[in-house]
Amino acid sequence: MKKLINSPDTVLADALRGVAAAHPELSVDIENRLVVATEPRENRVAVISGGGTGHEPLHSGFVGPGMLDAACAGEIFTSPTPDQMLAAATRVDAGAGVLFIVKNYTGDVLNFEMAAELAADEGIETASVIVADDVAVEDSTWTAGRRGVGTTVIVEKIAGAAAAEGRTLAEVAAIAERVSKAGRSMGVALTSCTVPAVGHPSFDLPEDEMEVGVGIHGEPGRRRVPLEDARGIAHDIVTAIADDADFTGAPVIALLSGLGATPLIELYVIYADIADALSERGISVARVLVGDYITSLDMAGCSLTLVKADDEILRLWDAPVRTTALRWGL
Amino acid sequence: MKKLINSPDTVLADALRGVAAAHPELSVDIENRLVVATEPRENRVAVISGGGTGHEPLHSGFVGPGMLDAACAGEIFTSPTPDQMLAAATRVDAGAGVLFIVKNYTGDVLNFEMAAELAADEGIETASVIVADDVAVEDSTWTAGRRGVGTTVIVEKIAGAAAAEGRTLAEVAAIAERVSKAGRSMGVALTSCTVPAVGHPSFDLPEDEMEVGVGIHGEPGRRRVPLEDARGIAHDIVTAIADDADFTGAPVIALLSGLGATPLIELYVIYADIADALSERGISVARVLVGDYITSLDMAGCSLTLVKADDEILRLWDAPVRTTALRWGL
Repeated sequence: MKKLINSPDTVLADALRGVAAAHPELSVDIENRLVVATEPRENRVAVISGGGTGHEPLHSGFVGPGMLDAACAGEIFTSPTPDQMLAAATRVDAGAGVLFIVKNYTGDVLNFEMAAELAADEGIETASVIVADDVAVEDSTWTAGRRGVGTTVIVEKIAGAAAAEGRTLAEVAAIAERVSKAGRSMGVALTSCTVPAVGHPSFDLPEDEMEVGVGIHGEPGRRRVPLEDARGIAHDIVTAIADDADFTGAPVIALLSGLGATPLIELYVIYADIADALSERGISVARVLVGDYITSLDMAGCSLTLVKADDEILRLWDAPVRTTALRWGL
Repeated sequence: MKKLINSPDTVLADALRGVAAAHPELSVDIENRLVVATEPRENRVAVISGGGTGHEPLHSGFVGPGMLDAACAGEIFTSPTPDQMLAAATRVDAGAGVLFIVKNYTGDVLNFEMAAELAADEGIETASVIVADDVAVEDSTWTAGRRGVGTTVIVEKIAGAAAAEGRTLAEVAAIAERVSKAGRSMGVALTSCTVPAVGHPSFDLPEDEMEVGVGIHGEPGRRRVPLEDARGIAHDIVTAIADDADFTGAPVIALLSGLGATPLIELYVIYADIADALSERGISVARVLVGDYITSLDMAGCSLTLVKADDEILRLWDAPVRTTALRWGL
């Protein structure tokens, strides 16, 4: 295992120290493992997300004006605790309530549910939206139902923009839910990731094979197949997503994310083929992100997310945002 | 070799098609392998850079308002040609001249020199700044003198901001030169990269060793040593840079770049230790970037760049920029 770390046991704490050192505009609570935006919230809804570490920049890279008010970081591939979530809610609630954005993994869902109960006890109103957008498989190693992946980034952006406009908790939750339901994703792994505390790859993937439909923790996907070229992979992913939901007839937000160890040049190579495949299916892309947005430690590969949008969603997408990983207009 | 590509021969062309598809706000000239900003230049100085592909987002990711007017892309790890550079200069010159920002590699330097002569023949005034900031070794495989690495990103930002202010070519060249001379970098590789046309790693690096002072094309560094932890690596890099130039007594811009296959979480882990090491040396960091900015295909590792700044350089650093890889205020 070759990693820039000090010890498998201190990866999360060390990374949070790094975030604190690099980004003085963020407040990092090392004890509670929170990254919190420091701008005043002035009686508007606060938006919180969180999950296991290892998917950076998700979620801490999306904290800041126009997106998340706080991110709760669990250990690597491990849900944060209800206490952390409560600490985050207590910290950012400005009296208008808190939206929890939750990826659909059993631990995250249960813990955010408990956090909502604890928050209610403290007089903090919460709502939750669950993202379950991975079309690869129904139930998976760590989920009942579909896994939550790339659509989460888009839900976080739209919810943050809606909250910034001063909408009520019910309104912010409603549009977040609408975006969540409008998103689909699928990923392909060329290599496994290696969890630091384990010290060896999570699964074996021969030099001439790839895992189609892999999960962001290395969960098995749809099938193990011989390595394809970018055009073939693009066709597979676009077909899986577009067969699952109708993305024609409205503008689409597309997110192509590397899985952690895939360089940007390869993402652009395959994006060219993805764009062709989308065009062949009559899908019209209105906004695009290409880069590392939701990763799986040092896994090589990529995932594609499509969200069917409308004028309101596009307007909220374009609204100013200032986070370490997504920034425009501020 | 596991890569998201179609053929080793078409990586550059395919990646440029991807950039064109993802970023309609950029003009991509596939034939001449240029990425060009589309905003009007209105009689101001134009700024051009370029070099071999494989270091993305450098340079094409830095094209846009407030930074580069055009980037010339060579084949992987291969200089672009004088004809490409001339085509770029012809395309973006608005009558106030063109600044070439050149990394110090023999091919790039010679070709940009020839391009300057060709441009002069066409009545286009040019100036050039050469970046030679890698402290690892004096002469290297592909250079006479020091290699040009991460400081290039900061020179491109500052030169673009100075050009946007309407400064003359001599003035833009002067501040670019000042930034270039104020920067130092060093990198550490945990793994080799694999050039697609070669198909196997550029060098062998055993599972328990790392290359300190590696070049961005995999050139040998200072020494091959047993793998260290993040704290040790941070100490080595900071010591090498801070022993080479005095970074105390003025604000510093720090750039920590992954080399292509290192996930963001590891960069934050080592940034915590870099921040400690800088603090111990009395170096005060005013601005920080952590992410992939200058890479080496799929190499794992990182490089640190420090630029000693002043109020003017910080002001130009903070000026609005809108590129695919660096964006704020626009």
